[in-house]
Amino acid sequence: MTYCLAMALDQGLVFCSDSRTNAGPDRVSTYSKMHRFSVPGDRSLVILTAGNLATSQAVIAQLQRDLEENTDFNIFNARYVSDIADYLGTLSLAEQDKYAKKGGPNAGFNASASFIIGGQIKGQDQELYMVYPEGNHITASDLYPYLQIGETKYGKPILDRIIRPDTPVETAMRCALVSIDSTMRSNATVGPPLECLFYRRGSLEPQERYFKLEENHPYLAELRQSWDDNIRSAFEELPSLSAMLEGDE
Amino acid sequence: MTYCLAMALDQGLVFCSDSRTNAGPDRVSTYSKMHRFSVPGDRSLVILTAGNLATSQAVIAQLQRDLEENTDFNIFNARYVSDIADYLGTLSLAEQDKYAKKGGPNAGFNASASFIIGGQIKGQDQELYMVYPEGNHITASDLYPYLQIGETKYGKPILDRIIRPDTPVETAMRCALVSIDSTMRSNATVGPPLECLFYRRGSLEPQERYFKLEENHPYLAELRQSWDDNIRSAFEELPSLSAMLEGDE
Repeated sequence: MTYCLAMALDQGLVFCSDSRTNAGPDRVSTYSKMHRFSVPGDRSLVILTAGNLATSQAVIAQLQRDLEENTDFNIFNARYVSDIADYLGTLSLAEQDKYAKKGGPNAGFNASASFIIGGQIKGQDQELYMVYPEGNHITASDLYPYLQIGETKYGKPILDRIIRPDTPVETAMRCALVSIDSTMRSNATVGPPLECLFYRRGSLEPQERYFKLEENHPYLAELRQSWDDNIRSAFEELPSLSAMLEGDE
Repeated sequence: MTYCLAMALDQGLVFCSDSRTNAGPDRVSTYSKMHRFSVPGDRSLVILTAGNLATSQAVIAQLQRDLEENTDFNIFNARYVSDIADYLGTLSLAEQDKYAKKGGPNAGFNASASFIIGGQIKGQDQELYMVYPEGNHITASDLYPYLQIGETKYGKPILDRIIRPDTPVETAMRCALVSIDSTMRSNATVGPPLECLFYRRGSLEPQERYFKLEENHPYLAELRQSWDDNIRSAFEELPSLSAMLEGDE
């Protein structure tokens, strides 16, 4: 499993990903799920991947090959981020089709993968999409300014509570880290290092901030401890059941 | 969907359930998922249900029929709660087998249901089990003192942080409500009224506390608002990214 998320904020785009992959409990490895492509002044794009590692690696490899061979359509000559989302969907479906559900030894095999693609191309506003395993895609909205792929549920409630388009970048990045940390705590197949990137809207520069937190990074340890303490305090301060419910029992 | 949970605490057992069922977005209804069976001084048992409503209703109906007909094994003459968990698994499998995956019109139809059964029978300690759709069951442990069925992931992180065997009942019930509230917020197929019950270990009485919170109950509204405010404060108080990460960017 994996957990990646991205947010479309007024100030720009935030991307965050874990780095654990597993194929059964004894095949746990570490791979970056964050892929950056940029031409300063022209475009800045980030792709996050989840799902079958063979599929997502093949898709990224094909995308890079198309770039090197300067094919008619590639990530550096595309005019819209949505076209790149279409292209990712097409590559992903083609790759899955090679291996999955053909009957025979692979009957029922699931090679599906999901992608988040976001960034900005000169002349356009920033864009953010999630590409489904089926190849189609959705974008974020003002009411729902974030997208997730992989093991999404554990870390969703905190995003629902905190993230709005006008959330400051610092808060949004912290919220992304808390969301991933909650997921790591509840699901052993999501794990560090965590990567986090902020692209400032309109800058067309690769990124304004990027950092990677290893398991033993002091900030991650402090964030965890602090969040755990604060959640406990948040509980202590909730209204007492006993007083409020006397009439209902 | 549905979300139910139960906790095995030093002081006793806590059960909490939502009441929404849906079969597609235009077939949303309200059914209690909490079923209580007790003989004061002899036994006190609570069953929570999730999954296919026809299956779970049929299982509870058969269990009640066996009770009325005083069959060789029923919920009032069982000697161990684990035997009742076996019995629920058997009833559930038999019911599913009538309809599911027979080929023909029902090929691929999923009639699965899950159950939580907990309580105490005279001469035994309290027990708590989750019955899988496959009919087998697991119990809670000291390190993992709660069980969940239905839409379990959204509400799990808060349980992982707060619930230990020595957690006071008041805190545990509050935590259960917060866990369900987080789930309702992230998934529209989980909804009020919420039912919450506390059985005191060793009492063999039906319950020490029971309450039901409708959507507009002032405690639920206050809990929600307070939790939302407290989570936001908890964020504000987290260590700043900027100061900690200067060396890593």
